[in-house]
Amino acid sequence: MRYWSFRDGFGLENLVACEGEAPQPGPDEVLLELSMASLNYRDLVVMRGQHGKAVTTPLIPLSDGVGTVIETGSAVRDFSVGDRVSPAFFQHWDGGAPPQNLESGRLGGPLDGVLTSHGVFPARALVRVPEYLTDAEAATLPCAGVTAWSALSEPAPVRPGETVLILGTGGVALLAISLAKAAGARVIVTTSSAERAAQVKKLGADLAIDRNEVPNWSKMVREVTGGAGCDRVVELGGAATLMESVKAAKTGGTIIVVGNVTGNTAEVFLPLLLTRRLTLHSVSVGSRQAFVALNRALDHHRIRPVVDTVFLFDQAPDAFRALERGGGFGNVCISCAQETGR
Amino acid sequence: MRYWSFRDGFGLENLVACEGEAPQPGPDEVLLELSMASLNYRDLVVMRGQHGKAVTTPLIPLSDGVGTVIETGSAVRDFSVGDRVSPAFFQHWDGGAPPQNLESGRLGGPLDGVLTSHGVFPARALVRVPEYLTDAEAATLPCAGVTAWSALSEPAPVRPGETVLILGTGGVALLAISLAKAAGARVIVTTSSAERAAQVKKLGADLAIDRNEVPNWSKMVREVTGGAGCDRVVELGGAATLMESVKAAKTGGTIIVVGNVTGNTAEVFLPLLLTRRLTLHSVSVGSRQAFVALNRALDHHRIRPVVDTVFLFDQAPDAFRALERGGGFGNVCISCAQETGR
Amino acid sequence: MRYWSFRDGFGLENLVACEGEAPQPGPDEVLLELSMASLNYRDLVVMRGQHGKAVTTPLIPLSDGVGTVIETGSAVRDFSVGDRVSPAFFQHWDGGAPPQNLESGRLGGPLDGVLTSHGVFPARALVRVPEYLTDAEAATLPCAGVTAWSALSEPAPVRPGETVLILGTGGVALLAISLAKAAGARVIVTTSSAERAAQVKKLGADLAIDRNEVPNWSKMVREVTGGAGCDRVVELGGAATLMESVKAAKTGGTIIVVGNVTGNTAEVFLPLLLTRRLTLHSVSVGSRQAFVALNRALDHHRIRPVVDTVFLFDQAPDAFRALERGGGFGNVCISCAQETGR
Amino acid sequence: MRYWSFRDGFGLENLVACEGEAPQPGPDEVLLELSMASLNYRDLVVMRGQHGKAVTTPLIPLSDGVGTVIETGSAVRDFSVGDRVSPAFFQHWDGGAPPQNLESGRLGGPLDGVLTSHGVFPARALVRVPEYLTDAEAATLPCAGVTAWSALSEPAPVRPGETVLILGTGGVALLAISLAKAAGARVIVTTSSAERAAQVKKLGADLAIDRNEVPNWSKMVREVTGGAGCDRVVELGGAATLMESVKAAKTGGTIIVVGNVTGNTAEVFLPLLLTRRLTLHSVSVGSRQAFVALNRALDHHRIRPVVDTVFLFDQAPDAFRALERGGGFGNVCISCAQETGR
Repeated sequence: MRYWSFRDGFGLENLVACEGEAPQPGPDEVLLELSMASLNYRDLVVMRGQHGKAVTTPLIPLSDGVGTVIETGSAVRDFSVGDRVSPAFFQHWDGGAPPQNLESGRLGGPLDGVLTSHGVFPARALVRVPEYLTDAEAATLPCAGVTAWSALSEPAPVRPGETVLILGTGGVALLAISLAKAAGARVIVTTSSAERAAQVKKLGADLAIDRNEVPNWSKMVREVTGGAGCDRVVELGGAATLMESVKAAKTGGTIIVVGNVTGNTAEVFLPLLLTRRLTLHSVSVGSRQAFVALNRALDHHRIRPVVDTVFLFDQAPDAFRALERGGGFGNVCISCAQETGR
Repeated sequence: MRYWSFRDGFGLENLVACEGEAPQPGPDEVLLELSMASLNYRDLVVMRGQHGKAVTTPLIPLSDGVGTVIETGSAVRDFSVGDRVSPAFFQHWDGGAPPQNLESGRLGGPLDGVLTSHGVFPARALVRVPEYLTDAEAATLPCAGVTAWSALSEPAPVRPGETVLILGTGGVALLAISLAKAAGARVIVTTSSAERAAQVKKLGADLAIDRNEVPNWSKMVREVTGGAGCDRVVELGGAATLMESVKAAKTGGTIIVVGNVTGNTAEVFLPLLLTRRLTLHSVSVGSRQAFVALNRALDHHRIRPVVDTVFLFDQAPDAFRALERGGGFGNVCISCAQETGR
Repeated sequence: MRYWSFRDGFGLENLVACEGEAPQPGPDEVLLELSMASLNYRDLVVMRGQHGKAVTTPLIPLSDGVGTVIETGSAVRDFSVGDRVSPAFFQHWDGGAPPQNLESGRLGGPLDGVLTSHGVFPARALVRVPEYLTDAEAATLPCAGVTAWSALSEPAPVRPGETVLILGTGGVALLAISLAKAAGARVIVTTSSAERAAQVKKLGADLAIDRNEVPNWSKMVREVTGGAGCDRVVELGGAATLMESVKAAKTGGTIIVVGNVTGNTAEVFLPLLLTRRLTLHSVSVGSRQAFVALNRALDHHRIRPVVDTVFLFDQAPDAFRALERGGGFGNVCISCAQETGR
Repeated sequence: MRYWSFRDGFGLENLVACEGEAPQPGPDEVLLELSMASLNYRDLVVMRGQHGKAVTTPLIPLSDGVGTVIETGSAVRDFSVGDRVSPAFFQHWDGGAPPQNLESGRLGGPLDGVLTSHGVFPARALVRVPEYLTDAEAATLPCAGVTAWSALSEPAPVRPGETVLILGTGGVALLAISLAKAAGARVIVTTSSAERAAQVKKLGADLAIDRNEVPNWSKMVREVTGGAGCDRVVELGGAATLMESVKAAKTGGTIIVVGNVTGNTAEVFLPLLLTRRLTLHSVSVGSRQAFVALNRALDHHRIRPVVDTVFLFDQAPDAFRALERGGGFGNVCISCAQETGR
């Protein structure tokens, strides 16, 4: 098998193309031939070596991917050779309460990830992906897709007629727009340009607010909700946006804390939280059951995740650089297929 | 004011057209000029005198209606003359847990209802109705509309991609189809004819099953859900359909018990309930807050309740007969407006 | 290893003592030496061959037991030799929504159960049991214990000050009394004699109603709750008691449907369900996560399940007969330990 | 009637003893003769004029009190002369979702409060208080008591065996200890001295951590929970403690944000929130229904709120000073009874 590995440390300079023998599945395991992988912001944090001491090298990066079953262990009943599946981001969280060692079961660090031609995964941590999706679209689901689903499901699900504010136009945000519309919500998105505004409206957003033109966008959100504020904020910004998100939320509203791209240490003004009885609920991905529910919703609505670029397997480092540079619209993918390695 | 009253007993023979002086609103009350009322199956039960000893005559019938504020009490802040509003079905249930004396606060029995040109209601039990709706459409919301909303909201809300089975084509069922679609669900409806099937598909149903042709429709529901069964049944049948509904539900599924038109005493086969861990959750209308949430969802999706016939105020008894006869498609309404009394 | 098996059919006449070689654990599995098993009403249904076609012979019976880890598979990290553990009733339900093939993962039918000296189980389906419990006490937890916990946890947990009505004095009922008291509830129990009344009061019940003396006990429950009715009924009776349970519940109350010992086909009077907005929520055992939560609660409160009799391994058929005969107080257990086979 | 009022501005220098005629109740209102009032930290914020522009003078301060019904409006059915009741903190939140104008319905600012011998309140905003409580004990319930209840009820209730960390020994904290114990939880409290530690243990706390001796108490909380962290933190500190609270919580745990006595602007380290999937849920008091549920729990467990000092009505300013000075143990009350005005 062919795979990329942070072999002797992190940083792109340590990301090395390797070859080796494909592992054998145990009785409850499945051998996948990966066809596509997809990058998340988290993968940049890992690449930079900033993910904490539990994530060490050597490491095959990336958590999001899709592949085909090419061998099943003796006790596997739920999957057959030829099934197209994705491994769940958390390999050990089926449903219900998250396990206490949640961090230890993540693909792409500390567990080896999917930037590989082949990989072995426990059958119980695999999920069938909708047929109508391309490999690149399907590859975005395990982390980015499930996060978008969880952000609209927890602690209570979005209802028709509610107003959902989604920050930005990253991969999670774009799928959240489609999913929130499928759930019947009114969707407001903060964007950075008129071009982005047009794109998110094409995805279904009811209103796009250019945050460069309207830096205090919470005010506009309150205005267009008759002064009430929005029911839910999908807070993908982080330190730089959290207070504005808090201001945008209605009494009893929910801020779904997903991202920290604009900084790790956020200030929160407690009296506002208290007076409005707000809930800050953090979401990082979700369980295998959430993944299954996401897929069912996608399938029924024929929703397609947005893919910006697909890099060839050999160009994997370029994919990291592209995501780091930013400015794209949609997910950055890497093909894991054999033929791309020519 | 002009109103209809079961004056000396129930039965249509005791439904009498009356005139009197319009009441004065207290400090926290509002005087409405009603424009339209709408009938529910429950109003037939009241008419037949079968609603239990708490509902007595004289009684102005009907719970569902809409009108215009023509006078406000001295302490009323939330409504102004000219506002178009509906009184909530339960006049004393704002939100949260239902009050223990839930039955005592119902319009149309034991409390006087809306088949009247004028009525006084506490301001806190009124709800603004969406502007785009006609009076007849709006009049169907307090009981039929809120019941449909509750049936898709309790004990947990419908999610995109879930399969909802709705029994029949009464007023609650028809609005439930639209609302379930707005929430992103896949909707299956049992109907009694090909004509009805075509009509519910036009409303958005994904599949209509003719229960005359497929009497054991639970089997078909299981087939089209890959053997799993549906997530939720909106059980509007009653004794004659409950077991078939139970068979149609998935493991962990929910049967929303709403109606009893086919009989009061239902048999339940407990082992099936237990093995599948089913929940039978009964819903009768809902709180004022549910009404507000319903209206917001309707407004955002521009959903229109289906109105079958509007009777003139003087023809109120004919409206009861029409509902009793059945065979219509949508809600039966009665105009309360002055000019119809000519 | 020594084990009992329904070898060529069900019925006690087919329950045969067998010997064989202990199985080897796979990489993710654990070999247990069982010390104690416990019977449930369900085991009688299995014994009588009435559990449906999915449960076939040969079969090692019983779902509830406890044992010691004597060998671990190569990939097992969470358990070590010497740990005292119980296998979860559902071997494939960790938490969250129940799997659609819920029935297929049950111990004691269709899967081989715990009436054996040795057994192999997946590590992820094992749960550590509290140290202070005897083997017999611990053996009662997987089905009876988890069912009692679920009955007080779903669909929403019991709160301090609520009134919980528990029917009868079987194994689930007795533990439910202790757990409901630990949760701060007021507990009412229906019993069949003054002796039983005294026993349940000793366990903490606030009130015991002799159902022979007070056959319409719902009335008394309403009286002692100021007319309101109880918040929750743990409905362990079945067909013969369900309507009385419905009458005992408050508006918005919950009937937890657990048992069917008094009959399978129950009649439900729908108008009462509807007027009171009741929920009938069926509970059969629960997930592995529920088992863990139960154990934590037991441990903190040092609650002890009630054990009636412990039979020697060789006397296993007598244990079935004893449970069938009834009249005991607490769980009927069977020792699986080697020395009892003299 | 006799009452205290911030007449021409805030600050204790503007708190003036007044006399006037008792108001008359409207048809849905009740006239109370207040017997006792109780202070909260919030009342100090109001006194200092720091509560925002919606709270203006003249204002009768204090939200928490208890009194006796001495006159009922013509439409009042639920209360009679002689009933001992408390007005709910939010006069317009019965249950369910909080109203969007939540702030406008608070007693003690912007609405006139209970530091008065007489007051008129809507009947629907009154709650009967448990008989066994003294007036001073009962007076602490509307804000401090309901807050403690909400902190253990939202977003999901505390369960038996869970670990609850409660910060400090203020009025809310002390009642939360008793209520968490009644719910079956294990309770850890941070205190400031050995004397306080002894006192909270007497109230039932399982462990008291002296935060002067153990400033990084999150570490100790994790140790005594086997490394897992606590299920819930009742965060009564504010800016100075929030990060330590976050560190003390388990994966999937909840921080109930109640207080801000140590500062308004808190820093939150987002990666920790995200990795542990934490929820920060803010609680300010609760609905009338929460108050009723609290009273039922208190009554069943005969829990007594802790009262530190009762000041005479004429000494009201001293009560403010005492609370400001701190160092007490339990709630500071003021008698509203006539005879104390000598």
